[in-house]
Amino acid sequence: MADLTELPRRSIWYGWGDPAHVKPLPTGGWPLLKFLGRVEPAARDTPPVALEDVRLPEVHLSDAARAQLVAVVGDEHFSTARLDRVEHTGGKSYPDLYRLRTGDGSRAPDAVVFPGTSQQVCDLLAACVEHEVAVVPFGGGTSVVGGVDPVRGRFSAVISLDLRRLDAVVSVDSLSQTAVVQAGARGPAAEAVFQRHGLTLGHFPQSYQQATIGGYLVTRSAGQASSGYGRFEENVVSVTMATPTGELVLGGRAPANQSAAGPKLLDVVIGSEGLLGVVTEATVQLARRPQIEHRETWALRDTATGFAAFRDLAQQLGHGIMPDVSRLSDHNETTTVMAQAGLPGMAGMGLVRARGWREPALAVFQIEDGDRASLRFRRKKLASVLKRHGAVKLTDSIAEHWMAGRFRGPYQRDHLMDRGVLVETVETATTWDNLEHLYESVQSAIVETMGRGWVQCHVSHLDGGGASLYYTFMASAESDPIAQWQRVKTAAGDAMIGAGGTITHHHAVGTDHRPWIGEEIGDGGIRILRAIKAELDPTGVLNPGKLIPDEGA
Amino acid sequence: MADLTELPRRSIWYGWGDPAHVKPLPTGGWPLLKFLGRVEPAARDTPPVALEDVRLPEVHLSDAARAQLVAVVGDEHFSTARLDRVEHTGGKSYPDLYRLRTGDGSRAPDAVVFPGTSQQVCDLLAACVEHEVAVVPFGGGTSVVGGVDPVRGRFSAVISLDLRRLDAVVSVDSLSQTAVVQAGARGPAAEAVFQRHGLTLGHFPQSYQQATIGGYLVTRSAGQASSGYGRFEENVVSVTMATPTGELVLGGRAPANQSAAGPKLLDVVIGSEGLLGVVTEATVQLARRPQIEHRETWALRDTATGFAAFRDLAQQLGHGIMPDVSRLSDHNETTTVMAQAGLPGMAGMGLVRARGWREPALAVFQIEDGDRASLRFRRKKLASVLKRHGAVKLTDSIAEHWMAGRFRGPYQRDHLMDRGVLVETVETATTWDNLEHLYESVQSAIVETMGRGWVQCHVSHLDGGGASLYYTFMASAESDPIAQWQRVKTAAGDAMIGAGGTITHHHAVGTDHRPWIGEEIGDGGIRILRAIKAELDPTGVLNPGKLIPDEGA
Repeated sequence: MADLTELPRRSIWYGWGDPAHVKPLPTGGWPLLKFLGRVEPAARDTPPVALEDVRLPEVHLSDAARAQLVAVVGDEHFSTARLDRVEHTGGKSYPDLYRLRTGDGSRAPDAVVFPGTSQQVCDLLAACVEHEVAVVPFGGGTSVVGGVDPVRGRFSAVISLDLRRLDAVVSVDSLSQTAVVQAGARGPAAEAVFQRHGLTLGHFPQSYQQATIGGYLVTRSAGQASSGYGRFEENVVSVTMATPTGELVLGGRAPANQSAAGPKLLDVVIGSEGLLGVVTEATVQLARRPQIEHRETWALRDTATGFAAFRDLAQQLGHGIMPDVSRLSDHNETTTVMAQAGLPGMAGMGLVRARGWREPALAVFQIEDGDRASLRFRRKKLASVLKRHGAVKLTDSIAEHWMAGRFRGPYQRDHLMDRGVLVETVETATTWDNLEHLYESVQSAIVETMGRGWVQCHVSHLDGGGASLYYTFMASAESDPIAQWQRVKTAAGDAMIGAGGTITHHHAVGTDHRPWIGEEIGDGGIRILRAIKAELDPTGVLNPGKLIPDEGA
Repeated sequence: MADLTELPRRSIWYGWGDPAHVKPLPTGGWPLLKFLGRVEPAARDTPPVALEDVRLPEVHLSDAARAQLVAVVGDEHFSTARLDRVEHTGGKSYPDLYRLRTGDGSRAPDAVVFPGTSQQVCDLLAACVEHEVAVVPFGGGTSVVGGVDPVRGRFSAVISLDLRRLDAVVSVDSLSQTAVVQAGARGPAAEAVFQRHGLTLGHFPQSYQQATIGGYLVTRSAGQASSGYGRFEENVVSVTMATPTGELVLGGRAPANQSAAGPKLLDVVIGSEGLLGVVTEATVQLARRPQIEHRETWALRDTATGFAAFRDLAQQLGHGIMPDVSRLSDHNETTTVMAQAGLPGMAGMGLVRARGWREPALAVFQIEDGDRASLRFRRKKLASVLKRHGAVKLTDSIAEHWMAGRFRGPYQRDHLMDRGVLVETVETATTWDNLEHLYESVQSAIVETMGRGWVQCHVSHLDGGGASLYYTFMASAESDPIAQWQRVKTAAGDAMIGAGGTITHHHAVGTDHRPWIGEEIGDGGIRILRAIKAELDPTGVLNPGKLIPDEGA
């Protein structure tokens, strides 16, 4: 069983997690990248600047505003210290990290507050309204779409409201398999409590070790095992949210999807990205912790064959029988995953190449279950579908290797950035009939705008209707890497929308996807969001610059 | 396989469906009701009055308003005819039917319009705004909570907008297993098209034969197989809705639950009960049509043992493995279901009584699957859980009998009303830890306010978090049966809210549950609904008197 309760230290300001965990590429990694012909590491490392060399703007908070914020949380939980401001300057996208590594702290908030109760959150919001200070809710700070950027908007100052002190698992109900959790609890800390009750949230996104319950909720996060446990939003029973116009409590009179008392208003708050209020607490639906985690590795002739096989898995096996995690790598990702898996990966590639498959696609699965008989049944069903598509079984250790490293991806990015490599991920989703078209459109857009570089993709989060596509791309950083990043990001986003996909499957909107939100949800959608925002946050202090386009935009 | 494509004629104005289908109680039905000591049929039938004897109010529509409505839909699709007005006077709750049967048509709309395109729906709404006419969207007219009552509100006239002409299945996508369906299509008609593609919507509420796609959507309907296919709302991919301020299209860029582009705004429209706009079209997620439907009947020692067994089913087997339909009858409902099942039921009762079980609880299941091996596996899992709770297997024919009659309940009510019996259903849901408490609270409230009568209940719609409770109650009608009905309804609603349940699991809010909506969703929820309503329907012409409390209430 994977250790899902490991709680590393919070992310270092210029990278991911505990820098002691940053691992160089495995032997052969750099030669492979070069061999693939695409990514040239810099001749020498370009480490981040020292903390004291990050250029920070002056603090703009008025004395009156500062005094009132301090009055709410106490002196020790109000900070304008350099490290606190730098740590809240942004999320963890490539541009976020690049700016800080090169000493650009111009986006830092004026101050950071650390409330200890939901009442304090309410009082902080009231103070921000009174003193016209923008306020950015901050959980794990793992946004890769600018979701926690301290944008001032029309206000003269902006503070970051960090929820880390609201980190309790308030209660667990073993009968209903639910838990009340404060918003600032990080995934592994909450999961440790759930597991002591024989339960699990089953929500394990790549950001899992750093991100928080509140962050999962306001971004509509999807974990790697979403086929088994559902997206985070499907498991929200109730939410408590502080707003500038009072505290809201929604849901809680029935299980997550068991009421018809008007529209499901929980879904107004879920995905609201801190623009409507600050989620302080949620009741979440848990499930029995599985006794068994079984992994399998398969290869398919090519990516298109993999698409067809995955569609059949989702539509023929259905929820509860299909694997909890299913992931199909396109040929490029197959190459890197196999290389990272070492000898078993090389052996696997040899095996499939021997069949004459020139561009094989790797599929890894995890089945979680409570008993052996059930596992056997589900494995048999899985194999029967895959074999109909000519799939070949490889050693399970490749899937094991992938699963063992599944929270390590962001660490590897830090190493690549040290060597002057631009690396980023983008993701989308669509229906099965449109999957291949969307896959090729986004792939082409990235390749064409990135120039020399490497792009790989996988399919995951299957259901009967469709699946998501997740791309990773890398290139040697140019002289202006942020312009380079923006060029590719814009092309990818345009391609997603142009080819009928969603602008984001689980990364949310933030600042970075805001240019496409109008095309995604239409004028009607924008009007609905604005109407709710005007009701709950009439002065607009909450998280300016994200999600909802400015009037007239 | 049950015939799910049977489309009976639309409901007669004073009852349910085609009166030719009304069946008297089976032999022994009346003696049983009497024996149970509770319900005394009237000495002779009290049939409904003749249509021409229904008292209708004058038509209040101005000439200008009438002219503009006619201009939109054409003369033949605008009606003030007696039958049309009577048919749109309300839904199918006991009070709705009682009033019409006794000649009270005072709530009839001033006119009925039958638009043929979504553009006509938009134009009708514009006309209603211009002439200050309230407008009530009308699908199958099966609401049992006053959802289609022609309430005038602050307006001088009210029309019913019947969507029956918008009944096409526009397209089916076999790859993504989705379909685009117009809102006025009735369940069986749409299902007939889906089945020709080897697909099913899997949505079979008791109102199935009369209700429409649009009705399912705006009421957050749950079908009997919700454990297998999910609630209707979980299978909505996109919605087109006409509003007084223009047409909205929400969703459609990803499968139903595969986007993180801000809050899931589809869930603002789903459950909006015609207060925000008129849904004209939806894309729905389908699933493979099962090849096998297998039914099983079991008995448990008593209702409490049944609750515990059902909780284990939902939490240990999980979605996809647990039966698609699971229904546990309390002791009272067990008595009537067994009696209606004839000889196999009597034999079953004998068998469990012989074990010394004085108040056994019946459990019926349906498993739908694509192959025999999978069915065997699921049956084995089901049996293993039930046996741990000491359940006894009875002949499958009892479950078969129940399933065969599952759309017939409302017909039986017509027969009971002929004999002067008050009969109604109420439903709620809660978490497993609270189920027994809620069950007893509502049961007591009904028994205490109804006096001499009969009440029975079943548990269904299980998931890991909880389940719903569905009560049927009957009593000999008093001299003022509507006051009698209101007394019980109020007590049941107060008990639901008092004991922590939801005011409705799948019947929606309408007029009848509006007194409790504030306690259900809180001030914050009301504020959010009002803000959206003000944006989309600023003059408030759409469906007054439902869902959202009046300002100051």
